[in-house]
Amino acid sequence: MHSVLVIWNNPIPPNPDLSWPQLHVPIKVILSQNNSLNNRFLPYDLIETDAILSIDDDIQLRHDEIVFGFRVWREHRDQLVGFPARAHFWNGSDSSWFYNSDYMCEFSMILTGAAFFHKYYTFAYTSEMSPDIRNMVDNYFNCEDIAMNFLLAHITRKPPLKVTLHWSFDCVYCGSTLHDRPDHYAARSRCINWLTNHYGYNPLMYSQYRADSVLFKTRIPLGKQKCYKYI
Amino acid sequence: MHSVLVIWNNPIPPNPDLSWPQLHVPIKVILSQNNSLNNRFLPYDLIETDAILSIDDDIQLRHDEIVFGFRVWREHRDQLVGFPARAHFWNGSDSSWFYNSDYMCEFSMILTGAAFFHKYYTFAYTSEMSPDIRNMVDNYFNCEDIAMNFLLAHITRKPPLKVTLHWSFDCVYCGSTLHDRPDHYAARSRCINWLTNHYGYNPLMYSQYRADSVLFKTRIPLGKQKCYKYI
Repeated sequence: MHSVLVIWNNPIPPNPDLSWPQLHVPIKVILSQNNSLNNRFLPYDLIETDAILSIDDDIQLRHDEIVFGFRVWREHRDQLVGFPARAHFWNGSDSSWFYNSDYMCEFSMILTGAAFFHKYYTFAYTSEMSPDIRNMVDNYFNCEDIAMNFLLAHITRKPPLKVTLHWSFDCVYCGSTLHDRPDHYAARSRCINWLTNHYGYNPLMYSQYRADSVLFKTRIPLGKQKCYKYI
Repeated sequence: MHSVLVIWNNPIPPNPDLSWPQLHVPIKVILSQNNSLNNRFLPYDLIETDAILSIDDDIQLRHDEIVFGFRVWREHRDQLVGFPARAHFWNGSDSSWFYNSDYMCEFSMILTGAAFFHKYYTFAYTSEMSPDIRNMVDNYFNCEDIAMNFLLAHITRKPPLKVTLHWSFDCVYCGSTLHDRPDHYAARSRCINWLTNHYGYNPLMYSQYRADSVLFKTRIPLGKQKCYKYI
């Protein structure tokens, strides 16, 4: 890990007394000019690595999950590699796309609340992607992650890659979040339909497997050691 | 499944009384002219599908494993997708490559005793690959699977893809096999060194994950259903 960047979207800067975690790498706080969800994908000069691990402030990932996710990303640097999987599906009677976060056999999106992607995509999102999409994200105050999934699928014609069985990231201490609102799924579905209309097609692609470590759930002889204990 | 091809390398043809399994697809027996391990990779006209599931006669795969393996192959049609993973490693003190079938965190070969690959590679193996390699396979009476792994890695610059935790395929009813011979590993290592010398480099690439079904080992709410029960 090279450094931790905190994208601080709150117009009130962090309290100077706020105690940050003691890490072996620097923590840098970026005070945003405006409260836009697009800020998390700006190509900050402070990002000096190819790989970005994008995580929401309420996500809890273990160290081994981060290490393994990064190793899978190293093998697939053009893809979104991460943890929370979601899918889109077509509702024939409504003639529209729906957003789905249920447990499924296949998925087509990985939420950028816990995902690795190449720094290139911050340039692509900010400078190459149509500004209409960033405006939509600001207007809906939602769906920057769906927009990023559309962008990668459009560029690569590949699905994202899901790692480990970690599926949902319910934060028990965080209280109410955006996702609790009953209109959350309707809003997410609206974004998928908006983006499909904007691109002229739906670029999202499905994948039917996830990546586990090679010896996950494998009984190995006594005395032999695994690289990961839990994943 | 389209059909089952049995590559019969024994100079004595199968006994006419031999009872074949009753399948929903035809079983076709190909009587080989000679007992060559290269015969399993001939581009038989009888193969009418893109995907070939290559299996040894002593391999036991479950139906769900075959279905899932095929679905992963559909997403990676240029790669070798299968079950028994192996690796090569460099021994600095010997200055030579070694073959390894131990439980490992990474692998670089999938044995064609239980693997999917595209029919194209039967043409590549038989007609595009150097005849010296097929001669080596005949001389050693071994290593056709290692040769196929070298060929795919050389063509694609990608590692193979391991599916499910199924690692070894010990056949309890089969008695002694080629693999029991103590010189098996020495012979396999010799092949890797021969092929590396032939290609002028070692094209094998490592991968550090395997593909499981999206909901493998995931607890899902009562009433919801998984696509696979065991994988």
